[in-house]
Amino acid sequence: MSIDHRSILEGVRDKKISVEEALLKLKEVPFEDIDFAKVDIHRKLRQGSAEIIYGESKTTKQIRGIVDAMQKNGQDRIMITRLSADAFADLSDISSITYHEDARIATIGGFCEPDGIGRIVVATAGTSDVPVAEEAVVTARFLGNDVTTIYDVGVSGLHRLLAHLDDIMSASVIIAVAGMEGALASVLGGLADCPVIAVPTSVGYGAAFEGMTALLCMLNSCASAVSVVNIDNGFGAGYVAGLINHKKN
Amino acid sequence: MSIDHRSILEGVRDKKISVEEALLKLKEVPFEDIDFAKVDIHRKLRQGSAEIIYGESKTTKQIRGIVDAMQKNGQDRIMITRLSADAFADLSDISSITYHEDARIATIGGFCEPDGIGRIVVATAGTSDVPVAEEAVVTARFLGNDVTTIYDVGVSGLHRLLAHLDDIMSASVIIAVAGMEGALASVLGGLADCPVIAVPTSVGYGAAFEGMTALLCMLNSCASAVSVVNIDNGFGAGYVAGLINHKKN
Amino acid sequence: MSIDHRSILEGVRDKKISVEEALLKLKEVPFEDIDFAKVDIHRKLRQGSAEIIYGESKTTKQIRGIVDAMQKNGQDRIMITRLSADAFADLSDISSITYHEDARIATIGGFCEPDGIGRIVVATAGTSDVPVAEEAVVTARFLGNDVTTIYDVGVSGLHRLLAHLDDIMSASVIIAVAGMEGALASVLGGLADCPVIAVPTSVGYGAAFEGMTALLCMLNSCASAVSVVNIDNGFGAGYVAGLINHKKN
Amino acid sequence: MSIDHRSILEGVRDKKISVEEALLKLKEVPFEDIDFAKVDIHRKLRQGSAEIIYGESKTTKQIRGIVDAMQKNGQDRIMITRLSADAFADLSDISSITYHEDARIATIGGFCEPDGIGRIVVATAGTSDVPVAEEAVVTARFLGNDVTTIYDVGVSGLHRLLAHLDDIMSASVIIAVAGMEGALASVLGGLADCPVIAVPTSVGYGAAFEGMTALLCMLNSCASAVSVVNIDNGFGAGYVAGLINHKKN
Amino acid sequence: MSIDHRSILEGVRDKKISVEEALLKLKEVPFEDIDFAKVDIHRKLRQGSAEIIYGESKTTKQIRGIVDAMQKNGQDRIMITRLSADAFADLSDISSITYHEDARIATIGGFCEPDGIGRIVVATAGTSDVPVAEEAVVTARFLGNDVTTIYDVGVSGLHRLLAHLDDIMSASVIIAVAGMEGALASVLGGLADCPVIAVPTSVGYGAAFEGMTALLCMLNSCASAVSVVNIDNGFGAGYVAGLINHKKN
Amino acid sequence: MSIDHRSILEGVRDKKISVEEALLKLKEVPFEDIDFAKVDIHRKLRQGSAEIIYGESKTTKQIRGIVDAMQKNGQDRIMITRLSADAFADLSDISSITYHEDARIATIGGFCEPDGIGRIVVATAGTSDVPVAEEAVVTARFLGNDVTTIYDVGVSGLHRLLAHLDDIMSASVIIAVAGMEGALASVLGGLADCPVIAVPTSVGYGAAFEGMTALLCMLNSCASAVSVVNIDNGFGAGYVAGLINHKKN
Amino acid sequence: MSIDHRSILEGVRDKKISVEEALLKLKEVPFEDIDFAKVDIHRKLRQGSAEIIYGESKTTKQIRGIVDAMQKNGQDRIMITRLSADAFADLSDISSITYHEDARIATIGGFCEPDGIGRIVVATAGTSDVPVAEEAVVTARFLGNDVTTIYDVGVSGLHRLLAHLDDIMSASVIIAVAGMEGALASVLGGLADCPVIAVPTSVGYGAAFEGMTALLCMLNSCASAVSVVNIDNGFGAGYVAGLINHKKN
Amino acid sequence: MSIDHRSILEGVRDKKISVEEALLKLKEVPFEDIDFAKVDIHRKLRQGSAEIIYGESKTTKQIRGIVDAMQKNGQDRIMITRLSADAFADLSDISSITYHEDARIATIGGFCEPDGIGRIVVATAGTSDVPVAEEAVVTARFLGNDVTTIYDVGVSGLHRLLAHLDDIMSASVIIAVAGMEGALASVLGGLADCPVIAVPTSVGYGAAFEGMTALLCMLNSCASAVSVVNIDNGFGAGYVAGLINHKKN
Repeated sequence: MSIDHRSILEGVRDKKISVEEALLKLKEVPFEDIDFAKVDIHRKLRQGSAEIIYGESKTTKQIRGIVDAMQKNGQDRIMITRLSADAFADLSDISSITYHEDARIATIGGFCEPDGIGRIVVATAGTSDVPVAEEAVVTARFLGNDVTTIYDVGVSGLHRLLAHLDDIMSASVIIAVAGMEGALASVLGGLADCPVIAVPTSVGYGAAFEGMTALLCMLNSCASAVSVVNIDNGFGAGYVAGLINHKKN
Repeated sequence: MSIDHRSILEGVRDKKISVEEALLKLKEVPFEDIDFAKVDIHRKLRQGSAEIIYGESKTTKQIRGIVDAMQKNGQDRIMITRLSADAFADLSDISSITYHEDARIATIGGFCEPDGIGRIVVATAGTSDVPVAEEAVVTARFLGNDVTTIYDVGVSGLHRLLAHLDDIMSASVIIAVAGMEGALASVLGGLADCPVIAVPTSVGYGAAFEGMTALLCMLNSCASAVSVVNIDNGFGAGYVAGLINHKKN
Repeated sequence: MSIDHRSILEGVRDKKISVEEALLKLKEVPFEDIDFAKVDIHRKLRQGSAEIIYGESKTTKQIRGIVDAMQKNGQDRIMITRLSADAFADLSDISSITYHEDARIATIGGFCEPDGIGRIVVATAGTSDVPVAEEAVVTARFLGNDVTTIYDVGVSGLHRLLAHLDDIMSASVIIAVAGMEGALASVLGGLADCPVIAVPTSVGYGAAFEGMTALLCMLNSCASAVSVVNIDNGFGAGYVAGLINHKKN
Repeated sequence: MSIDHRSILEGVRDKKISVEEALLKLKEVPFEDIDFAKVDIHRKLRQGSAEIIYGESKTTKQIRGIVDAMQKNGQDRIMITRLSADAFADLSDISSITYHEDARIATIGGFCEPDGIGRIVVATAGTSDVPVAEEAVVTARFLGNDVTTIYDVGVSGLHRLLAHLDDIMSASVIIAVAGMEGALASVLGGLADCPVIAVPTSVGYGAAFEGMTALLCMLNSCASAVSVVNIDNGFGAGYVAGLINHKKN
Repeated sequence: MSIDHRSILEGVRDKKISVEEALLKLKEVPFEDIDFAKVDIHRKLRQGSAEIIYGESKTTKQIRGIVDAMQKNGQDRIMITRLSADAFADLSDISSITYHEDARIATIGGFCEPDGIGRIVVATAGTSDVPVAEEAVVTARFLGNDVTTIYDVGVSGLHRLLAHLDDIMSASVIIAVAGMEGALASVLGGLADCPVIAVPTSVGYGAAFEGMTALLCMLNSCASAVSVVNIDNGFGAGYVAGLINHKKN
Repeated sequence: MSIDHRSILEGVRDKKISVEEALLKLKEVPFEDIDFAKVDIHRKLRQGSAEIIYGESKTTKQIRGIVDAMQKNGQDRIMITRLSADAFADLSDISSITYHEDARIATIGGFCEPDGIGRIVVATAGTSDVPVAEEAVVTARFLGNDVTTIYDVGVSGLHRLLAHLDDIMSASVIIAVAGMEGALASVLGGLADCPVIAVPTSVGYGAAFEGMTALLCMLNSCASAVSVVNIDNGFGAGYVAGLINHKKN
Repeated sequence: MSIDHRSILEGVRDKKISVEEALLKLKEVPFEDIDFAKVDIHRKLRQGSAEIIYGESKTTKQIRGIVDAMQKNGQDRIMITRLSADAFADLSDISSITYHEDARIATIGGFCEPDGIGRIVVATAGTSDVPVAEEAVVTARFLGNDVTTIYDVGVSGLHRLLAHLDDIMSASVIIAVAGMEGALASVLGGLADCPVIAVPTSVGYGAAFEGMTALLCMLNSCASAVSVVNIDNGFGAGYVAGLINHKKN
Repeated sequence: MSIDHRSILEGVRDKKISVEEALLKLKEVPFEDIDFAKVDIHRKLRQGSAEIIYGESKTTKQIRGIVDAMQKNGQDRIMITRLSADAFADLSDISSITYHEDARIATIGGFCEPDGIGRIVVATAGTSDVPVAEEAVVTARFLGNDVTTIYDVGVSGLHRLLAHLDDIMSASVIIAVAGMEGALASVLGGLADCPVIAVPTSVGYGAAFEGMTALLCMLNSCASAVSVVNIDNGFGAGYVAGLINHKKN
């Protein structure tokens, strides 16, 4: 609530704007001064740095339009999620665009230097969970985080998981990605002393119910440090982990 | 297919019974010779030893009647499941009856000597799961099994579970009893090399859905050795484990 | 992996302990050196300060026993969750115990000074959500966090919510507690630039399905900063928020 | 209950029809006189103006046949819902037919002049909800309503929604179209003082359960003015809103 | 956005308030000028007339306090929903309070004269649905509507329903209240030419799932004029119907 | 459509009634002549014999009133379903009333002589299913059917079921009553060559989901002769079976 | 239990077979004498007339083989259900085979003369329900029943349904086929005095949940005469209706 | 916890390794001595014999790589599950590889000689359940078990099932594979005196809910000997049965 409101008020004080005009102006721009400037559902995280486009239901033409608008606004780093390889092919002429195939994410302008307060660990129960995990990884790196991955460490092979105890114990935030019974989040939540973001995946068959079972399992974790995002929502997990790892004071 | 059928046939051979009479008799007792002799839903496990009464929906008068009938048939060891403390009070005058309070089971004639081929391990995730576990324990002991219990070893405290690795690795069968997210079965299934019978419990709140979440979790276990029984069905788990531990050749 | 293992190894080096004895000792305490020391499902957060007892399924006798054991171990601050007023009455003679009625939590030794990096905001949609919120508040305060509450700011009365915009914008973590349609989490997630922990409550009737609807709503939040805990799990939300607000570097 | 019955009765009075014949005739046309004259599931709204064909499960041949029959009955304005672009191509030679691509609706004879008592506002949470919204818009316009659209104003970006406060406050009826968590209906219901028809959409993934979550959310709205139609049922919302906006006295 | 904002601006123009003070003031009262003045979740419907208190989770002491506050604000007509007979007994000394037992509603200051544009018809499938229907009836009457009731006209006895065809055909809005299979809404929606608000009730057993089946049935109505509120939500139905019957121009 | 309509028409023909009066009369009594005369949800089965009152949600005062009205209408045999023992005690002074305790049904005027074309067999899986079965038995007997019962013949003890093969093979209709997994209906449907009405019961625990599992099982029966009624709906099964056993030609 | 058992017994009596041999023989053929002779899941209805093959999961080669085997056994009339048009093309050279396209059924040897005791009425709510209805129609006709169809008489257009009151009132059995809210079964059950077999269909969208809603609705019918078969199970409905219409005495 | 730990300790005792080095070493190899050596989710069953690869989500390139690695480790017998015919074609050049088409399993190195303590019986309700059954059969055979199959013995044709009574009564373990209502497991559990592993299949339509109904049915079996694995999980059933049939002493 600074520049616009202030300039209107100064105009009134200086009699350059009538009270009536000022009332109208206040009505027209009532919220911009609270610093809302999102594109799509994603917030600008830090001034002058990064914007995110949710690509799922957008045509490449729409995406190109949004990218153009952002770049004209001085936005030099942009991330596009849920982008198919075919859609990327259409956009591959955009300057400095890169495609992260497993994650189904395109980035423009590269990752920024990690400036978080610690390291994010992304673990998966199986290899089928990797694409969801990669969505979290690329999101977190794009938002300036240092990320370590520990893949294929499901709880039926504890030795594989425990072999990474150092990484687990020293993480700033952990993202646990698992389908089927989703027990990885509980075990990690019991081992670590940092927040664990659990991401259920739609991996599995039969009574896995496309991720519902993993989701319920994670919500009922006996470990207190666990909170959960939607099924296959790697982006959300990477985003929340990035916020936690960039704790404002 | 022995006594009855044989005596009918001998009667026919000896002309003491006409063919028509024999046909009628065969019709009247057509299946007893295949050796069906259940009381209620529970099978007689071994000749001359043990019978089981499902007490849930029976009055103490009905139970007393069934016990009388069994004892007249020479059955010296009887187990009554899902029996409340109040119902037991009504039955406490029966000779040599004992009440196992946590398990809500009464036994008559005591446990028989363990004669299984190994040891059954019953583990629980929390202390609230103990009553269901005890139902399994008493059932298994009544059916002649050696049982070891490992309680309160949920996966959010792996060290407590791993402290019992010897018991786990040397078990003949493991019964994993857990509510909430039910991940214990998967971890045990990964550690042991024997069958794991998973018993989901109705312990938990909210999205635990009275055991549904633990049930689904256990059915989706990434460990191959796990099979599952109904929510809170300690009896069934103890029964199946007893069968496995008394493998017939 | 320091004191215990080291002293065993030094004993071996100094020939005070035989190799066989050492092997046995290593087996007996194999994980304590990784710094596991939980009581119940709750981790010791910081050395020498705070322990948590989950009171739900425990008798007051059991709770008293655990408290005694903890205090003998030098634990001066203890929190007991899900404790009924009746159960507290039984325990009220414990020195320096306090009961937080709405939260159904007893604390021993008081709250410690807030030493987090920011402030936790706990918001509810309605007045019926307050008990769950208070569980989060007392948990967070017990764990050394500064907490601000904003109650009864459901989304059908946006003006009430927006009147607290300053608190919302300056929070370190937000806990959004809501039943019925649970939309509060999405609106807060859109306004704030910090992690939002969403707690669905069982408030509502009919198609609220005892919190299931609020839970699903929160998992599908269009705001990226939202993660979710179990229905009515105020403790978990307070615990995770406390971890985030005490970000380790 | 006028023309037909009256003419039969007059025939009886005038002895042109015997009582027996009259009985038979009454039986054959027993309900037409109550003014039922629907085609398919859609009611004729106002005399001589508009008919609606539900196109989903009909062949273009069937549709053409119904259109012919209607036109022969003097029906000059016809709307066909759930019509694919391919199906429209087959029907494009029909005189004065127009295809509304987003809405998947074809209209014959154009929209009639708005003659409702106010304005219908159709709002969506995201851009993916627009096709369902357009089905509502075209339906409402076809039925003689003035419609304003406010798209992409999901609750995680309140400023975008509040920028349209004037339209919202002055609406006669609001149609709130949203997938995912469907919170838009509650926020609109809190802001406006008119009926809000909520349309859940199948937009979303994972625990969105193809619109089920949005549906449940809307049914549990804390705003009193909200009622709900089936998932993706834009037609129904437009129809109900049209009825409300043409309130008969 | 008038009085407050204007006086602040005039203060600035007249140099009685500095720009900085004005910025602060604008921030503190940003939304009050849009005329929000709800008590609880219920909107004031028309200036100076009626307020509604949701009584479900409130103590009689809390309710008395809210009533006092409202009356001091000049509110002479107040309705309290979901109020048990016992709770009413505690409040019965409040001046001009009346209890509507079936509806579980207390009203203060009586109903106002019906001033809607038509008549609301409330129909139930069975006698068990009557309490929910009465909640709708009292709500609608309190809000100034003329109401006709048609009870116990379930679709398995069509003759009873059709006997009320005149009332049905001449209604301004219909509220269809039904449990079990909830088919009443579809039949009424087919007969009438006005909006039908369907209220599923928790009446029934077995696969009625406490109203879920009726709810799903009503959402899938083949009649286009039907929209639905939450299970047992008679208040919501009466409120929406009242809005429709008081159509603003 | 005979007497009333005819007399109106004759009045018109004979000029005793004007056309306008006739139109009005036709409108007022449009459906009574189709011979609807239900009390509550139950149809009068055969002229002058039996009426049924659904007692569930009725006070004994209401029931007494309905009985009085029926008896004044010459109804000598009346059945009241879902009547608690306490409610019966209040009504026990009614002449010739009898209470069937297991079935929770009271009958007035006794059963009529069986006049069906065959015999109805009612089978249950367990003893806990008997109350639901008895509701079917008393209903069927009240409606003039010969009934044989075969209780406690669940599929885990096939010999007990097969011992009744004669009854099963010679039945006119079979009612299969079972909770838990409900497999009895499929086995009976495979053995018999008559219609099987399956009644799922709420017997069981855990994943029995209060009858839902038995219901789903019965709907998926691999036996073609099976149709299903609601959970615990013994009355419905007895009613349908009675209709089938009294096949009209 | 005649021929085989008798000849064994006579052998024993005549000393041609030893008691031991007889015991063995009795064990080997214990059930064949009860005259089971099904092909697939469908029972032979009447001696020497009709067999049914469930075609869904069978190759045309398998079907041809079964048909051959049946014909060699003297079976002159055969019906094949769930047969695609493509599969029929492969089988079209079989003598006297006919394809019923809507019903997806092939028949060999034609329908037999209707010899039931009345007429079966098959009604649908919409035109999309017709394929399921036709499966019932062809099944019933193949099994020797007279069938009348009443299509597209959903309850939102009561006049269309009531126009067929004569057919409805004179039916021997009614099959009610409906998707969406499935209310047709209740209305028909209220009008008719014969058994109503309800067939939910997967017609609808959104909260129709592929027939689940119609299924639940039909199970909760307030009409007592209704029983239900699986979603889209036209065959089962036709089969049960045929059994009812051929009531054995 | 022997060799490695011992040699480290001996090194410390002998002063060949410093305490610090020893601490590091203990940390690096903390779990290898417990003899974990799984590949993927499948355990090595017996030393030097068999490994299993879960093929579902792996490319043929990945599979070939794992096979190579295993063979280099001296693994001569390997099984690959969930392998499509197309994927097998790519791998068919691997030496001594065989494809089991129904089971969708490839084996390398053949089955080993049966060395279990009895015989496993695999039964299916219908022919559509055979592929899931074959997955169990091949798994069990690969793991050294003698297997008998009894297919197409669903409970609606008891005679077919009972004709195999000898096989059933003499089995060491039974695997019951069934879709639709899944009643086969209960009937087999009642007949046999060995453990029954129930495998629900996704065979069926409508309210079969892709195996959910069979799953619930099996979990609620009234036979005590039944435990259950995930829908379509033939592999798991074969694996568990193999463990039971190789009971370690």
